[in-house]
Amino acid sequence: MSILVVGTIALDTIETPWEKADQVLGGSATYISLAARPLVNPVGVTAVIGHDFPEEYTKLLQSNDLDLSGVQHIRDQDTFAWGGSYRENLNTRDTIFTHLNVLAGFRPVVPDKYVDSNVLCLGNLDPKIQSDALNQVSEKIFVACDTMNYWIQNTQVELKEIFQRIDCLVINDEEAHQITNEYNLFTAARRVLELGPDILIIKKGEHGAMLFVEEQIFVVPGFPLEYVQDPTGAGDAFLGAFAGSLAQQSYIGLDALKRGIIYGCTVASFCVEAMGPHKLNQLPITDIEERVRSFQGITQWGALHEQTGV
Amino acid sequence: MSILVVGTIALDTIETPWEKADQVLGGSATYISLAARPLVNPVGVTAVIGHDFPEEYTKLLQSNDLDLSGVQHIRDQDTFAWGGSYRENLNTRDTIFTHLNVLAGFRPVVPDKYVDSNVLCLGNLDPKIQSDALNQVSEKIFVACDTMNYWIQNTQVELKEIFQRIDCLVINDEEAHQITNEYNLFTAARRVLELGPDILIIKKGEHGAMLFVEEQIFVVPGFPLEYVQDPTGAGDAFLGAFAGSLAQQSYIGLDALKRGIIYGCTVASFCVEAMGPHKLNQLPITDIEERVRSFQGITQWGALHEQTGV
Repeated sequence: MSILVVGTIALDTIETPWEKADQVLGGSATYISLAARPLVNPVGVTAVIGHDFPEEYTKLLQSNDLDLSGVQHIRDQDTFAWGGSYRENLNTRDTIFTHLNVLAGFRPVVPDKYVDSNVLCLGNLDPKIQSDALNQVSEKIFVACDTMNYWIQNTQVELKEIFQRIDCLVINDEEAHQITNEYNLFTAARRVLELGPDILIIKKGEHGAMLFVEEQIFVVPGFPLEYVQDPTGAGDAFLGAFAGSLAQQSYIGLDALKRGIIYGCTVASFCVEAMGPHKLNQLPITDIEERVRSFQGITQWGALHEQTGV
Repeated sequence: MSILVVGTIALDTIETPWEKADQVLGGSATYISLAARPLVNPVGVTAVIGHDFPEEYTKLLQSNDLDLSGVQHIRDQDTFAWGGSYRENLNTRDTIFTHLNVLAGFRPVVPDKYVDSNVLCLGNLDPKIQSDALNQVSEKIFVACDTMNYWIQNTQVELKEIFQRIDCLVINDEEAHQITNEYNLFTAARRVLELGPDILIIKKGEHGAMLFVEEQIFVVPGFPLEYVQDPTGAGDAFLGAFAGSLAQQSYIGLDALKRGIIYGCTVASFCVEAMGPHKLNQLPITDIEERVRSFQGITQWGALHEQTGV
């Protein structure tokens, strides 16, 4: 039982209405792998960092027992850097800068050990890099893939090729609209599934997630939180925990997918409680399980009909 | 078993990205009472109409077996008229005009028969009118109340008095923010409950609803629809079906409130499928029950742990 994560490791500059922090550990591979790790072992990370990547961050990732053997270290360039700013309701984010740096020339090399993983998480990346990674793994791997507005807009052909090769696409509602030009998510989902993926998950931030597979639908609301510090990485954390949960199952049917979404929403809810990925740092499985139970408690329907008699 | 609805009856002008219709039957009392009627009988409507209210609309309401004995007919003024326009994603609405007309001088008169109803729905109205209605009913009635941005902004004192007198406040997420200045709904809910209501329901449109009562929370996602024609009245339909469901229960505890929310979301999902309230016109209870089962099916968690052994 193992999962392979191919994505980015970044140094982020994050601005919320209340604070600004830079050189925050970030990147899709960071969030995905940290989120998956309580649920599955080993988690192999295939990514790239630059000469300025702080040693303390390497130690943090190692202390979570992530397998970093697939992480390339480029000595003459900076790590991928991203800057974003959240507006007051935290649901809207503006990208302030994206400096690809080492990411520009990234050619992923999947360690042999992960060629036959249970699940491959393709974090948000240039579809050409995602394709490169797909070419290196077994056909039998379950592939869950994320993307973003930039690739949807600029690399439509490559992205559509990716859609034909993956099992599960995990995107948010804005991306669903951007791909299909539909606001109605049900309609958008139908159109996306026609493009290739067998399974589609639409993440709706604080409003939860929707699963579409073979005419089946599953919807789950967001886990309500009193305090949200930083939404960065929540979508990646969702993907990681979804994948980690799937990796535990011997058969990926509807129940396993539902479970994956529940764990995805749950771990994403931890992610947003701290700046960057810090809440995911060695997040105890017992905390996750407790919140899953709490989540079940607040979503469980009571008796629809009054009990009569004794 | 009966419910009393105090609200507006209106002639609406509704514009969506695809069509424009005027003289559409509308008003909170219209939507609330039509939504409640499949679930409870009698439904007493206390409202006011003007000389221009079409006879065909009176017949429509009568054909749904609503008790219109509390509807005043003012011969020398026009019916309350509202105009709204929805943007492309249907989640944002601009009010184009509000002509109070007969509503300006409305003094509700609750028929004796409804003074002791199970549930009173106070549809969106001037809090002074809501207060007037409250003064006429039994203390034992369960009161569910709606409001809107206009009253939140302009009649804060009167509204806070209402909050202290009602059992359940039913508002949407924007209104929750407006009342408390909080974007976080969990925090907003705490603050609203401090203002007086024992129970708070926050409606989130296509994203479902949240219940807050005595430290308990219940969240339900929206029922996903492929086709939405007109969102007008969905919130009122929610309130009506919520109330209708509650009226069926001998004890209004957590299970009854959850059930009310489920029926509320379900009937609201019918409401948006047609222009105005027309989908609610004689909506069969069997259709509602079928959709509740469908709703349960798409929200029900599967097994969280794989079955092992035989």
